[in-house]
Amino acid sequence: MKIPPVKGTRDFYPEDMAVHNFIVDGWKKVSLRNGFEEYDGPIFEYLKMFQIKSGDEIVKQLFSLTDRGGRDLALRPEMTPTLARMVNQRISSLPRPIKWFSVPRLFRAERPQKGRLREFFQWNIDIIDEDSFLADADVIFTTVDYLRHVGLSADDIVVKLSSRKMLAAVLQKIGVPEQSLDSLYAVLDKKNKLPLETLRETLTGVLPNSQMASEVLAFMELKTIQDIERKYGRQEGFGELVELMKRLNTMGVGDYYRFDLGIVRGLAYYTGIVFEIYDKANELRAICGGGRYDNLLRDFGGPSISATGMGMGDCVLEILLREKGLLNVRLPERRLDFFIARVPNIIAFEDDAKSTPLDVADRLAEQLRRKDLRVDLSYKATPLGRQLKQASDRSAKKCVIIGEEFKDKKLTIKDMGTGKQELVDYDEFLSSLDSAKGV
Amino acid sequence: MKIPPVKGTRDFYPEDMAVHNFIVDGWKKVSLRNGFEEYDGPIFEYLKMFQIKSGDEIVKQLFSLTDRGGRDLALRPEMTPTLARMVNQRISSLPRPIKWFSVPRLFRAERPQKGRLREFFQWNIDIIDEDSFLADADVIFTTVDYLRHVGLSADDIVVKLSSRKMLAAVLQKIGVPEQSLDSLYAVLDKKNKLPLETLRETLTGVLPNSQMASEVLAFMELKTIQDIERKYGRQEGFGELVELMKRLNTMGVGDYYRFDLGIVRGLAYYTGIVFEIYDKANELRAICGGGRYDNLLRDFGGPSISATGMGMGDCVLEILLREKGLLNVRLPERRLDFFIARVPNIIAFEDDAKSTPLDVADRLAEQLRRKDLRVDLSYKATPLGRQLKQASDRSAKKCVIIGEEFKDKKLTIKDMGTGKQELVDYDEFLSSLDSAKGV
Repeated sequence: MKIPPVKGTRDFYPEDMAVHNFIVDGWKKVSLRNGFEEYDGPIFEYLKMFQIKSGDEIVKQLFSLTDRGGRDLALRPEMTPTLARMVNQRISSLPRPIKWFSVPRLFRAERPQKGRLREFFQWNIDIIDEDSFLADADVIFTTVDYLRHVGLSADDIVVKLSSRKMLAAVLQKIGVPEQSLDSLYAVLDKKNKLPLETLRETLTGVLPNSQMASEVLAFMELKTIQDIERKYGRQEGFGELVELMKRLNTMGVGDYYRFDLGIVRGLAYYTGIVFEIYDKANELRAICGGGRYDNLLRDFGGPSISATGMGMGDCVLEILLREKGLLNVRLPERRLDFFIARVPNIIAFEDDAKSTPLDVADRLAEQLRRKDLRVDLSYKATPLGRQLKQASDRSAKKCVIIGEEFKDKKLTIKDMGTGKQELVDYDEFLSSLDSAKGV
Repeated sequence: MKIPPVKGTRDFYPEDMAVHNFIVDGWKKVSLRNGFEEYDGPIFEYLKMFQIKSGDEIVKQLFSLTDRGGRDLALRPEMTPTLARMVNQRISSLPRPIKWFSVPRLFRAERPQKGRLREFFQWNIDIIDEDSFLADADVIFTTVDYLRHVGLSADDIVVKLSSRKMLAAVLQKIGVPEQSLDSLYAVLDKKNKLPLETLRETLTGVLPNSQMASEVLAFMELKTIQDIERKYGRQEGFGELVELMKRLNTMGVGDYYRFDLGIVRGLAYYTGIVFEIYDKANELRAICGGGRYDNLLRDFGGPSISATGMGMGDCVLEILLREKGLLNVRLPERRLDFFIARVPNIIAFEDDAKSTPLDVADRLAEQLRRKDLRVDLSYKATPLGRQLKQASDRSAKKCVIIGEEFKDKKLTIKDMGTGKQELVDYDEFLSSLDSAKGV
């Protein structure tokens, strides 16, 4: 009975796993060097937990399941609700600020598209209980630090950033009623995806009148923070945004970012600095997005504590890395250090143990593996050519051949790259490996 | 609104994540050095796929879900069906033998117990298309290599091994009809857990008569392979088992294993060598189990190709590691290399850029992180004592203090272990780090 995989999921064969590990290992490495500590939570949570942040809207994007007690559960579509739950559970004992990262597997029950699968991985970094924009700068720097680490330069990607606080202040100055803000954000978030007339109509729908819609549209067209200052003055959030950009300059990532009023982040829960990173050619979906969300812990039944964070999926990132040719050059080697072959038709050597070539191979493999070298051996003493072919199929760097020379405790080492062979003393070979590894 | 985690799942706070990573990183490291390549598959598959290997029985132990198209899916309770599906999909192009490993997250919809959770991790290693017992020896060696790597000696654990092939041969010699074997295995697998009388009754139920049940019981009491040879002769599978044990001796793990006829592995799909590893005190469930399963790929619609493998969950292992005190001594450090503090009330230095202490901290952090050092800094220039307290809370090895000395491009480095402070030149400090890391 042959059964296919489920649509929108991925099989990771060893060559795919190498790419996946390259991405995830980089996420972990860069998080750690930026002072974040790793956490994780369960793959499923109570369904209602995901409704707190994202409303009932989210339910139809969830894979839901029930346990044997009939409880409604769901596969996590994002990590932040779990983070909020976990932090709230131990809020009084955790040293703060909390700088945590995670690389969760997430699920969305939607139609698979380019860069959007039903099962994916996401890098999350969050800083909790630090209301200064320095935490936002830290999150943005760490994100860029990763993208730079995997080889993406300011020619490849752009961090578009803005401030929801400033946006709110200007919109209120224009006259938008506070209760209209959340629905307005959802519309503005789609600004770059909608034709102008559709946008105008939709805006008029959520605002008191069409004149206000026009004024909001004109405001959203402003390109620089200087334009905003000239037209609306230094509104709330303005100074913080300017300072944040100065920080990023000092941190050495000034060429990566650009102010962009179009970055709104649809969700109601953002409260301050917001950002998204795109490929510069602007052909793909956002690589990642993040921002400040100061009310979330409170919404999850905890205290009112500020927070800021970022989430980056693996799908768009992988497409971009592939397009830029970075997967070829940066992927770590998946090669065997040694493949052990043995000359056929040798029954046993004349040593004390009357060792067979297989005995020698097994003992040698054990000694090499103890040195943490990647070693495999031929199960069968087939003709040597076949064993060498196997060594080459497994991309072994070197092949150790156990032959008649072993009667003098010697081995043949074949370099699989150059084809050069040399005869070495068994014990000298082992001790040379120690010194090569600096043991 | 406060929502608890789902029962039988785990939250991995940073200190739990450190333990988890210690376990998983070891699984990966030992797999690679033994020549296995990593793969993974989706968290959910079609429900019916899990019934092929384990029958309808499995369905009530599954977390099942439906996608929007109404398809019946399930969270994976084990990895082997996915492995079989993936190998079958590419059977003609994969170089063989296939030596693969995976560290999947798995799910069981059952009542949580000690060492058994509803969500857990499992290390899987498999060798496909190699029918020699050398592959079985390789699987057992690799498993022991890991347990030895994390500090468990032959005083702590025991590999109990047997052969389903030999068991079948002797049982048939006793007169057990072939069609009764599968149900008999399920009973014999529970042998050590049932009182003798219950066992005898259950056996009589699956066998033609009570005399045969007595003979099977007497056979199962035999302690050594010599006993079996004396009583039943060298049945099929006997020679292979003897050779396997010799191999394990040669590989240097002879003190870890013991023949045990009680190791049956309930599932019908095992066909040859079988083994389970237990804590020597025998207080916990099995740490892992495995064996040869030569028909599985065929059952999944592929060709008839031999296979052998092992699965080890993280829950029992973690309990044992904790009991043996190995988590304390072997866990890698989760410390910051540097915490950067700054003396309060300094406005700016007299350098060309009129740098503030924060500017200096940001630049220094960026340079240290580029060297892949773990660095964090204080967001606020609070009194120095508070910043040092923060450095100590974060287990920083050293604290860099930016103070008035920076006017001469000097920094104070405080060793957080000894408390010793020294004044160093900024550039010399950075270059000393390069040479310390061998850059």
